[in-house]
Amino acid sequence: MSLVLGALVEALSGEFQATFSGDAQRHIDRLAPIEAAGPCDLSFVSHPKYTSKLAASEAGCVIVSPALQEVAALRGDFIVVADPYRYFARVTQLWKLQHCRPVPVGIHPTAWVDPSAQLASSASVGAFAFVGAQAVIEEGVHLGEHTVVAAGVHIGRHTRLAARVSVGQDCRIGERCILHSGVVIGADGFGFAPAGGRWEKIEQLGAVRIGHDVEIGANTCVDRGALDDTVIEDGVKLDNLVQIGHNVHVGAHTAMAGCVGVAGSARIGAHCTVGGGAVVLGHLSLADHVHVSAASVVTRSITKPGHYSGFFPIDDNASWEKNAATLKQLHALRERIKQLEAQIKPLA
Amino acid sequence: MSLVLGALVEALSGEFQATFSGDAQRHIDRLAPIEAAGPCDLSFVSHPKYTSKLAASEAGCVIVSPALQEVAALRGDFIVVADPYRYFARVTQLWKLQHCRPVPVGIHPTAWVDPSAQLASSASVGAFAFVGAQAVIEEGVHLGEHTVVAAGVHIGRHTRLAARVSVGQDCRIGERCILHSGVVIGADGFGFAPAGGRWEKIEQLGAVRIGHDVEIGANTCVDRGALDDTVIEDGVKLDNLVQIGHNVHVGAHTAMAGCVGVAGSARIGAHCTVGGGAVVLGHLSLADHVHVSAASVVTRSITKPGHYSGFFPIDDNASWEKNAATLKQLHALRERIKQLEAQIKPLA
Amino acid sequence: MSLVLGALVEALSGEFQATFSGDAQRHIDRLAPIEAAGPCDLSFVSHPKYTSKLAASEAGCVIVSPALQEVAALRGDFIVVADPYRYFARVTQLWKLQHCRPVPVGIHPTAWVDPSAQLASSASVGAFAFVGAQAVIEEGVHLGEHTVVAAGVHIGRHTRLAARVSVGQDCRIGERCILHSGVVIGADGFGFAPAGGRWEKIEQLGAVRIGHDVEIGANTCVDRGALDDTVIEDGVKLDNLVQIGHNVHVGAHTAMAGCVGVAGSARIGAHCTVGGGAVVLGHLSLADHVHVSAASVVTRSITKPGHYSGFFPIDDNASWEKNAATLKQLHALRERIKQLEAQIKPLA
Repeated sequence: MSLVLGALVEALSGEFQATFSGDAQRHIDRLAPIEAAGPCDLSFVSHPKYTSKLAASEAGCVIVSPALQEVAALRGDFIVVADPYRYFARVTQLWKLQHCRPVPVGIHPTAWVDPSAQLASSASVGAFAFVGAQAVIEEGVHLGEHTVVAAGVHIGRHTRLAARVSVGQDCRIGERCILHSGVVIGADGFGFAPAGGRWEKIEQLGAVRIGHDVEIGANTCVDRGALDDTVIEDGVKLDNLVQIGHNVHVGAHTAMAGCVGVAGSARIGAHCTVGGGAVVLGHLSLADHVHVSAASVVTRSITKPGHYSGFFPIDDNASWEKNAATLKQLHALRERIKQLEAQIKPLA
Repeated sequence: MSLVLGALVEALSGEFQATFSGDAQRHIDRLAPIEAAGPCDLSFVSHPKYTSKLAASEAGCVIVSPALQEVAALRGDFIVVADPYRYFARVTQLWKLQHCRPVPVGIHPTAWVDPSAQLASSASVGAFAFVGAQAVIEEGVHLGEHTVVAAGVHIGRHTRLAARVSVGQDCRIGERCILHSGVVIGADGFGFAPAGGRWEKIEQLGAVRIGHDVEIGANTCVDRGALDDTVIEDGVKLDNLVQIGHNVHVGAHTAMAGCVGVAGSARIGAHCTVGGGAVVLGHLSLADHVHVSAASVVTRSITKPGHYSGFFPIDDNASWEKNAATLKQLHALRERIKQLEAQIKPLA
Repeated sequence: MSLVLGALVEALSGEFQATFSGDAQRHIDRLAPIEAAGPCDLSFVSHPKYTSKLAASEAGCVIVSPALQEVAALRGDFIVVADPYRYFARVTQLWKLQHCRPVPVGIHPTAWVDPSAQLASSASVGAFAFVGAQAVIEEGVHLGEHTVVAAGVHIGRHTRLAARVSVGQDCRIGERCILHSGVVIGADGFGFAPAGGRWEKIEQLGAVRIGHDVEIGANTCVDRGALDDTVIEDGVKLDNLVQIGHNVHVGAHTAMAGCVGVAGSARIGAHCTVGGGAVVLGHLSLADHVHVSAASVVTRSITKPGHYSGFFPIDDNASWEKNAATLKQLHALRERIKQLEAQIKPLA
């Protein structure tokens, strides 16, 4: 498996203003991190803080930012471009396109497609996949093995569902999305009315609407809305094991790391990031460009862009125990400080 | 899709003491939140704090509590009932019954049912579902596409398993339960004995017993017991991505929000609520009517009903950093306050 | 279902130096916890703190440590062994072997195995399982119902995949592993380059390599690496709903409880334990023998073995609210203490 360096640069020349210096015939056998890259590998460095790693790297070629061009030139072959990380991302895509196993075409003989479903001719359906009544599967869609696409679902062009994804009735997924294994779109939201010590089910009558270019990680769940739909806008990226409650609205190009939980009816802005394991309570709003640290609990709406955090700092267990125990007296300690201040005032 | 208002009120008249005022022939096209409801929509308001929203609403009809009857009467059609939220819940159920896609009947030709399984005549089995040896599936049960019901499982009447649920060997599920996609009942509990730096597996010989009217959210896991069974009592509601460890006992009508983790052998009382992302450590007991806030960590048994919390409050990152750093000195700060108090005593 | 006591002791005599005293012909009908065990049950007690429970137990036979031999002897039948817990673990394995339902053999008629896959003659494949091109399935492997084994996967001898597991392309799983239902191995890692307000996908070109004797809980996810592989070493035990990001390295015999999240490129040592719901941020290193408490957030590398914690202690809600509010002034309180100290110095 290899790519020829000159061909690679040529393939991306329409998208990037990049300059290549080196041997265009060089074969690249692997993409590798800068510290592990060898003479047949292509790597990248964005940030000047990695200058010494760049200088020491044995990589066959390195993608660098203009600030690093001089150091790169002393070392060997390089590609200089304004955004090396993004350039590298596109290289991984080229690599995958050329080297990875082909996606199967056609409808696997074990798959079940309801006669009333509309399946575009270029769509492919994996083994044991199920496509329900009136579902619409557009051109270039790939449904992985064991996917369950319920009745009335609409899946936009070139979207790929990995193995074992399920999409509930009447949900809509946009174009060029990727849903990883175990994803559940459109399970019932968690809605119950208290009824004399029991819980009366509120049927969840909405659906889920997912925009274009959305990627959803393994075993992540997006619940259907109670009355209106749950909405995930264009370009959103959700990592694995994320929970999105009913009637949540996630703004465009927002990214959430693994194990995040967003409770019902929360409204997350566009271009936000939410760190792993964070929790957003229900019925809150987050403005655009809000960044929440891992494991933080958002308990109130956040109206200003910025970076927000809230988790207990880790410590050796003995120190933590002492501080955690004292924390239970913190309010009382504040009172004691106040009293001290009152006592010292006439003396000082 | 619509319901006629008079027929709707009539349908619920056996269950609720409700008074309807308005046009019994009015067609309702949608159930909607009070602020979004239009002339063809039915909505509800429980709490007097929403009086102004009620007054301004364009809803075709509104379900209200007696305290809101006067305001409602000034506005248009209304149904007055002691518990509008519960009434509305029942309306969503009527709506679903009349408008949603029918559940398939019979056994899908692709399903596999072991010849020794007992399947009631009114049970339905979806595409690619698997029913193992000696399983018992009672009347009115629906097994969704790709469900896996292992050998010896018992599923009570009118219980519904969504697509891609698995129930492990010999587990029992009661009547009228709903298990959403990706649920795993009866995987092995996490039990290992330390053995010279390695872990020796303790086989999990118990099963899972789930009562009646239990609802379990997408990708939630309930592990089988080590020696005895893990037990989920009647009316429990678990949201998505919840983890219930082996030998846990969850009391009747307790509800847990998404991403909660309950460690092995914990005993949760009846009528409790556990907020999203909370963690309950193993071998603890929670009394009935205990309410745990989201993201809190229960590290000791709670013997009194009440509301318990424990998570770091979120703040802008810079403020959080300063406070979190200081928190590591909290115990030392307490000592300094003590010393100040000792110093000031002879002076004051 | 029963085991004869003498035969049981005999079966383990090669592995353990154990002494049995009692009726070798006694039939054991159940393994049970010490407080619940009856005359036909076998139980165990390791720790002297359970002496009174031991003395009062009605168990037919009890496995005890040498320190408890005298108390056990006064009571009835016993097995004395240096490590009763580990002995008991092996007994559960014997029990399962003799009493549980047999694993099906052969290839289920509904399964799909690609003609280019290599399937050992003693491997078994469950209903609706899918085995892709060039996959290698070694001797004694069991693939549960609805498992999806993608192209190029390698599964080592005697590994068992429960129902509804998926293993992505070219991932490798060692020998004697157990993967529970809903596990996803080899979904794409969460890698995107920022690109003018959008996210450019970095294709994940690595795979996942899992060692021998690894157990992975229900609905847990292990992502494939971006360039290199994600690695889980021998003997690792992961509970349910755990998230392992791309390029993470988990050292041998490390155990993680439910709902743990480990972000990309973290390097966890050997013989570590991570408590339920804990979060480990990306690109960190944990030394061997590091133990992290439940719900703690690891934000920096930990270079020394030990026990580390960091979560807010739970309290009744009113107390928590007061302390949490005051926590936001903690840094300011420290300044006030400093000032008090400065004021009191000339006075004291």
